[in-house]
Amino acid sequence: MPQLQNRQVKLAARPVGNPKREDFSFETAQVAPLEDGEVLVRVSHLSLDPAMRGWMNAGRSYIPPVELGEVMRAGGAGEVVESRHDAFRPGDQVTGITGVQQYAAIKGERLQKVDTARVPLESYLGGLGMPGMTAYFGLLDVCAMKEGDTVVVSGAAGAVGSIVGQLARIKGGRAIGIAGGADKCRFVVEELGFDACVDYKSEDVAKRLRELCPDRINVYFDNVGGEILDICLAQIAFHGRIGICGAISQYNSTTGFRGPANYMSLLVNRARMEGFVVFDFAKRYGEAVAAMAGWMAEGKLKVKEHVVEAPVDQFVETLGKLFAGENLGKMVMKIG
Amino acid sequence: MPQLQNRQVKLAARPVGNPKREDFSFETAQVAPLEDGEVLVRVSHLSLDPAMRGWMNAGRSYIPPVELGEVMRAGGAGEVVESRHDAFRPGDQVTGITGVQQYAAIKGERLQKVDTARVPLESYLGGLGMPGMTAYFGLLDVCAMKEGDTVVVSGAAGAVGSIVGQLARIKGGRAIGIAGGADKCRFVVEELGFDACVDYKSEDVAKRLRELCPDRINVYFDNVGGEILDICLAQIAFHGRIGICGAISQYNSTTGFRGPANYMSLLVNRARMEGFVVFDFAKRYGEAVAAMAGWMAEGKLKVKEHVVEAPVDQFVETLGKLFAGENLGKMVMKIG
Repeated sequence: MPQLQNRQVKLAARPVGNPKREDFSFETAQVAPLEDGEVLVRVSHLSLDPAMRGWMNAGRSYIPPVELGEVMRAGGAGEVVESRHDAFRPGDQVTGITGVQQYAAIKGERLQKVDTARVPLESYLGGLGMPGMTAYFGLLDVCAMKEGDTVVVSGAAGAVGSIVGQLARIKGGRAIGIAGGADKCRFVVEELGFDACVDYKSEDVAKRLRELCPDRINVYFDNVGGEILDICLAQIAFHGRIGICGAISQYNSTTGFRGPANYMSLLVNRARMEGFVVFDFAKRYGEAVAAMAGWMAEGKLKVKEHVVEAPVDQFVETLGKLFAGENLGKMVMKIG
Repeated sequence: MPQLQNRQVKLAARPVGNPKREDFSFETAQVAPLEDGEVLVRVSHLSLDPAMRGWMNAGRSYIPPVELGEVMRAGGAGEVVESRHDAFRPGDQVTGITGVQQYAAIKGERLQKVDTARVPLESYLGGLGMPGMTAYFGLLDVCAMKEGDTVVVSGAAGAVGSIVGQLARIKGGRAIGIAGGADKCRFVVEELGFDACVDYKSEDVAKRLRELCPDRINVYFDNVGGEILDICLAQIAFHGRIGICGAISQYNSTTGFRGPANYMSLLVNRARMEGFVVFDFAKRYGEAVAAMAGWMAEGKLKVKEHVVEAPVDQFVETLGKLFAGENLGKMVMKIG
């Protein structure tokens, strides 16, 4: 095999506010010979996630931060080009934590082989990947959603939110989305089948939710934090459940996190607010993938990836589109 | 029976900030003849609770607000002076929602007869009353405290907090209190047997908690809200539980509630924050009273009432002592 050149994007500085190009370095390295048990993947797709912003920060979190000088962490998918692991052969399609680079050498144990005969590779970064798992376990386990529940989800046009609402309907509940802009709201209602969607950019969210949820909110699945979390807290139902999945409205804040001032509504309504991280459910991913693939085959669940093709050097600009809310569905960068 | 004069304290205005004398009216009425099923109680003790501040506000809460012109709501205890209910006779000692007044006519179904042979009447407003029930169900049910847990409780010298820490020790955990002032901290550790108590008025709470809880906080029982809630959120353990019982630091705020900016620690630590109201456990009060009375008899549980004797007209000033944090243990006003 000829010596491969690997273009890599490394974290060079801890961003303040929105990540900028200067916070990263762009380097070309030669791919080193594989060690025993390793697999070399040519990365074709990168998963762009709000959580990446947190990984760039120093300090204790649910996983260690990306160190300065380290290749930026990212979930990815691609094709095996060389293998020193018995379970993988060149040509296999795989997903794993590849990082933002063209080639990744990864221990076989940390790769998942996927079947792209009926499902495109990028769906394994979306509906059948982390966002799908997050929606499934977050809604059904953490929020303990039951038939008849009114479920409100923010980031409703995003990777996780778009699935949460559809699962809520599949499970016999009402799904109310919150998203930014008429296009997203139309997508959520007309293409994904939510009962309704509130446009936080043009509507009075509190007023619209009161109209749409006259019996209040049984489950609020929070992807955004900030003011919308406070509004939903105020309208939470008796014994309601709030799942804290993310807080994209706050990640780039330079003035600190906004705390939910209405949290005493938890007391008034005997409600709970619980955080979770999808990795904790890893042993049960098989259950979720089987269920979701089944609903997809029946046409009940639509997963949508928003694929942006760009050279790996455009990582920062492409991630910026995610924080600017330009995506419908799961944001995927196809390395062009 | 001669016509009885009843001195009553009625809510006259919705307080802004600390309740003031002008927010109440002080009136004398004649006690009306009892209706069938009613019992007339001469109120000797009033329970003074942080929750009273919330009852003075308009708007939806876990119980309706006290209306303007209505006798101020209060739990109380006293002696039956007349009865038109089969289950009660003059001389019986009872507790119930008496209101801030000298005499209360109450339906028999809403009164509890208590045995004062071995336990003083005021204890039925404290350890064996609502505060005791709140501590018991809040710690053991809502916070699901387990053996070996490190339990932190704020308002540790107060009615509920003083019991929470003792129950935590009885159940095989460590009890760390947070209270204001050296006297309270000494009381909590030396008289009640907590493992330690942090003086938030003179110590760096975050630093002291890190020292006292090197393996972080499994259960935080919150009576105060504000900055201390934020500090405990930041130090919550993996799968930790925060019980929201009250927020005395915020009740008299005129600038709105402070939301816990560190709530994303719930996600990082897969932790939950849950609100509760003791009334929901009413069917199980018997279980708690039996357990607590047993521990009291064994000397494992000490309940302390802070009894202030004053005429009923001094209600506002006496309640002010509670919000000023002058009480050690349950604040009870003995109507003098």
